[in-house]
Amino acid sequence: MEIKVLHQIMDWNEDVSEEVKEELKKHHICMINVMGSPGAGKTSLIISLIEKLKSRFRIGVIEGDIAGQVDAEKIASLQIPAVQLNTDGACHIEAMSIQNILPSLSLDELDLIFVENIGNLVCPAEFRIGESMRITLLSIPEGDDKVEKYPLMFTDTDCLVLNKYDMLPYFDFDETRVRSNFNAVNPGAPLFCISSRDGEGVEELADLIAEKMEEK
Amino acid sequence: MEIKVLHQIMDWNEDVSEEVKEELKKHHICMINVMGSPGAGKTSLIISLIEKLKSRFRIGVIEGDIAGQVDAEKIASLQIPAVQLNTDGACHIEAMSIQNILPSLSLDELDLIFVENIGNLVCPAEFRIGESMRITLLSIPEGDDKVEKYPLMFTDTDCLVLNKYDMLPYFDFDETRVRSNFNAVNPGAPLFCISSRDGEGVEELADLIAEKMEEK
Repeated sequence: MEIKVLHQIMDWNEDVSEEVKEELKKHHICMINVMGSPGAGKTSLIISLIEKLKSRFRIGVIEGDIAGQVDAEKIASLQIPAVQLNTDGACHIEAMSIQNILPSLSLDELDLIFVENIGNLVCPAEFRIGESMRITLLSIPEGDDKVEKYPLMFTDTDCLVLNKYDMLPYFDFDETRVRSNFNAVNPGAPLFCISSRDGEGVEELADLIAEKMEEK
Repeated sequence: MEIKVLHQIMDWNEDVSEEVKEELKKHHICMINVMGSPGAGKTSLIISLIEKLKSRFRIGVIEGDIAGQVDAEKIASLQIPAVQLNTDGACHIEAMSIQNILPSLSLDELDLIFVENIGNLVCPAEFRIGESMRITLLSIPEGDDKVEKYPLMFTDTDCLVLNKYDMLPYFDFDETRVRSNFNAVNPGAPLFCISSRDGEGVEELADLIAEKMEEK
């Protein structure tokens, strides 16, 4: 019985996701869903991307967290419009939450919205939220076996960021294993090696986003 | 409506959790639920604990993963009975899965079972699986803001392991912040600073488990 209900909820989520997509299209906004484990470095990556892209695009951020507003405060301190979405226990963001929160951003004054999803390598991948692009982060300290163990997050994304790449010397991390596993489940999707700390690799991902912006 | 259904599922899970607990009690087995983010170091911690405890207790392991059997193979190579539980997409282990899997372990030949939950700092905390003890791992690379952001995982546990503690010099991690946040949500619960890589701190946690074993 519970499987049937889950199915209904997800169908409903897909419908709302399409509505959100339509709404954003009307405002010529590209929305990027940033996903990864707790502590993979999602906020730092978003901040690095904002630095690279803010001269060209008007950017806003929706910060998803179960509780608190630590990250939204970081973003707002950069003078970037930020909205905190607290899920109060839920392990992922659903499209309905995005639909509810969009009116609190001035959509006519934005070109690009980053959504930082809940830190979770499982559930967020199952829920479309009206995004036009997905970025999955895997940080070096998490280990090189994650594509095998959490396949959906890597299959259903537009690109993979190997984050905290400057930490590679300190961990037993086989980059070839990740590249080959990722290629097997998501052939052709780009992989970026990034260190938000020293800026390595951020430019390349920013370029991909800028290309995406031109498409819309 | 969906909230109501979720509630039913969780009530049902609680009932089965109690049944599992009873079954383990009959066999004088202590079961430990090991939880934390992907890559927090759950498998390595379990292996370090096995090394410390195997002369005193007969140990088995249930390895939870969405897909694959990487970790079960590691455990089995130590000549420790290991069962792989694949959740096929689900983000946490439920009590019913443990109930189904118990008959594949020889319960009369075990004193202690480690269950490695799915790598997820959110959902597993909501589901009791018949365990007599919970260990939550937070690894240094994940950052010092996790207790604020993922409260339930830290509230509803018997102890916290700060794992990959040897990595402290390489990350901007405020241990005092974590200690004070953890103390606020879970007063009196012990916190262990552990590096499975060099063995630091493992003995103290092994002692706590041995105490727990004597209680039963």
